[in-house]
Amino acid sequence: MNGLYHLGELPTAAVEALAARALALRAGAQPQRFDGRALGLLFFSPSLRTQASFQRAAGLLGLDLVQLQAGAGGVWGIETEEGAVMDGANAEHVREAAAVLGRFVDVLAVRAFPKGQNRAEDERDPMLAGFRRFAGVPVINMESSRWHPCQALADWSTLDMLGVHKRAKFVLTWAWHPKALPQAVPNSTLTMAAQRGMEVVVHRPRGFELAQDVMEEARALAARSGGSVVESDDRGCLDGAQVIYAKSWGSLAHYGDAAAEAGARGPFRSWCVDSTWMARARPDARFMHCLPVRRNVVVADEVIDSQASVVIDQAENRLHAQTALLEAVLSGAGRPESPASTAGREKSPGRPIRDPSSAMEMKR
Amino acid sequence: MNGLYHLGELPTAAVEALAARALALRAGAQPQRFDGRALGLLFFSPSLRTQASFQRAAGLLGLDLVQLQAGAGGVWGIETEEGAVMDGANAEHVREAAAVLGRFVDVLAVRAFPKGQNRAEDERDPMLAGFRRFAGVPVINMESSRWHPCQALADWSTLDMLGVHKRAKFVLTWAWHPKALPQAVPNSTLTMAAQRGMEVVVHRPRGFELAQDVMEEARALAARSGGSVVESDDRGCLDGAQVIYAKSWGSLAHYGDAAAEAGARGPFRSWCVDSTWMARARPDARFMHCLPVRRNVVVADEVIDSQASVVIDQAENRLHAQTALLEAVLSGAGRPESPASTAGREKSPGRPIRDPSSAMEMKR
Amino acid sequence: MNGLYHLGELPTAAVEALAARALALRAGAQPQRFDGRALGLLFFSPSLRTQASFQRAAGLLGLDLVQLQAGAGGVWGIETEEGAVMDGANAEHVREAAAVLGRFVDVLAVRAFPKGQNRAEDERDPMLAGFRRFAGVPVINMESSRWHPCQALADWSTLDMLGVHKRAKFVLTWAWHPKALPQAVPNSTLTMAAQRGMEVVVHRPRGFELAQDVMEEARALAARSGGSVVESDDRGCLDGAQVIYAKSWGSLAHYGDAAAEAGARGPFRSWCVDSTWMARARPDARFMHCLPVRRNVVVADEVIDSQASVVIDQAENRLHAQTALLEAVLSGAGRPESPASTAGREKSPGRPIRDPSSAMEMKR
Repeated sequence: MNGLYHLGELPTAAVEALAARALALRAGAQPQRFDGRALGLLFFSPSLRTQASFQRAAGLLGLDLVQLQAGAGGVWGIETEEGAVMDGANAEHVREAAAVLGRFVDVLAVRAFPKGQNRAEDERDPMLAGFRRFAGVPVINMESSRWHPCQALADWSTLDMLGVHKRAKFVLTWAWHPKALPQAVPNSTLTMAAQRGMEVVVHRPRGFELAQDVMEEARALAARSGGSVVESDDRGCLDGAQVIYAKSWGSLAHYGDAAAEAGARGPFRSWCVDSTWMARARPDARFMHCLPVRRNVVVADEVIDSQASVVIDQAENRLHAQTALLEAVLSGAGRPESPASTAGREKSPGRPIRDPSSAMEMKR
Repeated sequence: MNGLYHLGELPTAAVEALAARALALRAGAQPQRFDGRALGLLFFSPSLRTQASFQRAAGLLGLDLVQLQAGAGGVWGIETEEGAVMDGANAEHVREAAAVLGRFVDVLAVRAFPKGQNRAEDERDPMLAGFRRFAGVPVINMESSRWHPCQALADWSTLDMLGVHKRAKFVLTWAWHPKALPQAVPNSTLTMAAQRGMEVVVHRPRGFELAQDVMEEARALAARSGGSVVESDDRGCLDGAQVIYAKSWGSLAHYGDAAAEAGARGPFRSWCVDSTWMARARPDARFMHCLPVRRNVVVADEVIDSQASVVIDQAENRLHAQTALLEAVLSGAGRPESPASTAGREKSPGRPIRDPSSAMEMKR
Repeated sequence: MNGLYHLGELPTAAVEALAARALALRAGAQPQRFDGRALGLLFFSPSLRTQASFQRAAGLLGLDLVQLQAGAGGVWGIETEEGAVMDGANAEHVREAAAVLGRFVDVLAVRAFPKGQNRAEDERDPMLAGFRRFAGVPVINMESSRWHPCQALADWSTLDMLGVHKRAKFVLTWAWHPKALPQAVPNSTLTMAAQRGMEVVVHRPRGFELAQDVMEEARALAARSGGSVVESDDRGCLDGAQVIYAKSWGSLAHYGDAAAEAGARGPFRSWCVDSTWMARARPDARFMHCLPVRRNVVVADEVIDSQASVVIDQAENRLHAQTALLEAVLSGAGRPESPASTAGREKSPGRPIRDPSSAMEMKR
């Protein structure tokens, strides 16, 4: 497969195969080895789980690791606009940055949060779009303005691991947060649950609707898989939930206007998942969150520390899901040849061990 | 062994074994290999030697490396208070950060300097305490508010390497510095020398006493090992020293009050180890410092550049001490099983090469 | 070879051998393996290509990687002045920083841009000079105040790859840029082309001459190789060029005076390589730039996106050139022994498993 931008773009069977492989890896299956090949990680935004789990996945797969951090003495600003006269802050265009990094690695993973000023620009996801267009190697989205497919894949595998029924009731609930957070995780969580065929409810205050096109995509995915998607601001929609998945996000109605957005959030300070919320759900309901989470703001200690909470398993599954994803990307047919991959892989017949295909044959 | 927080907590025989192994590694002994397992490094504070030596140790031991830096576009702030309502600057609680990283690696090393505002809070060492409590894997302290055990272990091995007698006179001397520095290194140096059984003198101005409980621990360690611990502000206490170990630290009497602390330090600007200080010591005395050191402020060029100075060997021994420590932690019995370590290690019987124990048998 | 500070210091035959090896690696030759040895990377300045390509080269060569970033929570400031009384911002002297890192790795690469305040100080290249003097292991310059030899070596190999004749006309042209940039790249490009024996023209406005001593060195190199070096501010000097190599740099006449320098640059806003510039060159002329480049400021989209542009190949050749360079440094005779390298390499005959050739035999 040629990278991953949005999980919903993959056929459901492909997602199921990746999730199954993730759980097999969790259970102790041996990762494939890709010695002599390389993974590039490029962070324009902060990260704990994503950095750590991709670094570790590289090690498990035998990949060389190239890691870059933008800002603060690392990599300079990258321009994404076509035709820009670059006399401002950005020192390099994504056309060059992507093409160059694509010569050094076999797969490139990029994290770039939205700037939060201009919704239309952010929804074009310019940094990911630029890297996907110009890198010349598969690109993995480590969370962009729009999507966080690695989280969604990990969550899918977590639901499988927990034996949650494909038709179970899944409530994605908004929560209050001191900042206006991006939509990538709720977008990906919603479409992931819809694609599984779950009975999906988006529980959010009025004014905190997710983007119309994302809702439509979720409904289309649900229609194909036999699930459903509804929205509600009524706490009663939690009743009988099998999964309560919490996440805060900012109001699209006030995008880029921090004061107005904070004002819109203000009345909903009490939207914090506590035991009264969980009491509405099934007795065996699960609490999920992608982390990082603000305790006693988004979720009460009594919930995240309870047996219902599976947040640490979700996070662990990031590692296994990404390891499975990288295996699929690196062993995929039809991968474009790049000079870097040429340089990185063995060609001479006398040294078969670092040739990926030969190595895999040896393992079989 | 289950990580390392404070060297003084280890039995002396265990310290001696680690120091001996460090010197064997320095002399060319082959490090054990732990291919398929991983070391996590998490820095909340700046570092040169510690970063470089732990990275290198990971390479020598065949460990996958996961490295995270807090601040400046890396990892966000981590909350350590139990029950906190997290509506401030910190985006994640140590309960989650530690538990998640513990799923990705087999041993986790953390550096977190004190905040320097509230002494009682700093002395609880909240970040290290949190990681040790919640990581689920062994945690190594790469310098906390209270202790710097890797430095102490390296220094112990350096004293062994130099053939310094266990009963020799060891002067830990305060020096002036433009900032109020933390106590972790002097605390660890003092207790290390006391545990060795040395004749320990703490040479510091009045008002710059180390913490009472640390002094008491040092005296107890000395009592057990046949050594002694005294304090003095008299330059004459340097007379006949075998080792002069310099380090600046701030006055606990003015903790968190930078102006008052600077005022207390002011009169002691001349406390810089120069040749007149060294002239009081034995002709074969050694000058030690943990580095980084401010030349001609803490120590004069004429001393640090002399034959008496062993600071570069001390620093090199950080690598060997930490390699020995990681060997002990990773080969230790009773290590808790974590899913990450399960995922990272070979289980299938047909591929013994990456199984640590098998690999070691093959080497024997 | 004992590191690399300035390409012009190498005999031309040595440069040619490195460039040839770089192209062989690009074509798929197998890099040598140096398992158990280590490369240190220390960045005092930002980087994309250099970080990524050195990280990848380490992987291809089997080297352990030690990587440090100055500033922003990484490594503190490093003092370079001899005899300094270090009561200012810098916490460590290069004497210690270099000597310590030299104990942990086998080769150390350092990037340190000029401070841009004092020309004489910058031209002494104090950080590189300090590391070269005190590291005790070979040091590679990843771009200093004065030189960028890895770029020059990559560019040499790119010219070879493109079949550009050794006597061809090579125009290094200044371009406008919103900031006063350093001279390291133009200095290295100029001397590289002169050492090849090319017909070199430096096209720049009056007031933007390169340093006198660099021009003299270039002329001396050209004299030895049968080439030539001239300067011109006449656009006509582009006529018949085989290569147009663009790069902006600040005026040495106003070094450290940002306002005066910006004023001097002001009239030359139109110095941007566009199709009218390229039209003066040969029909098969090549456009080169080291990257990062500001589009439509230094070069028009119509040029950098044309078939004439080879900037991505130049950047890819950074990887191959540095891989070749590291091979030469690490396999070089006469390398000084350091304790770290002793610790890192196999000595005992009875433990073949980490010997690359033996390990490969075992796997076959």
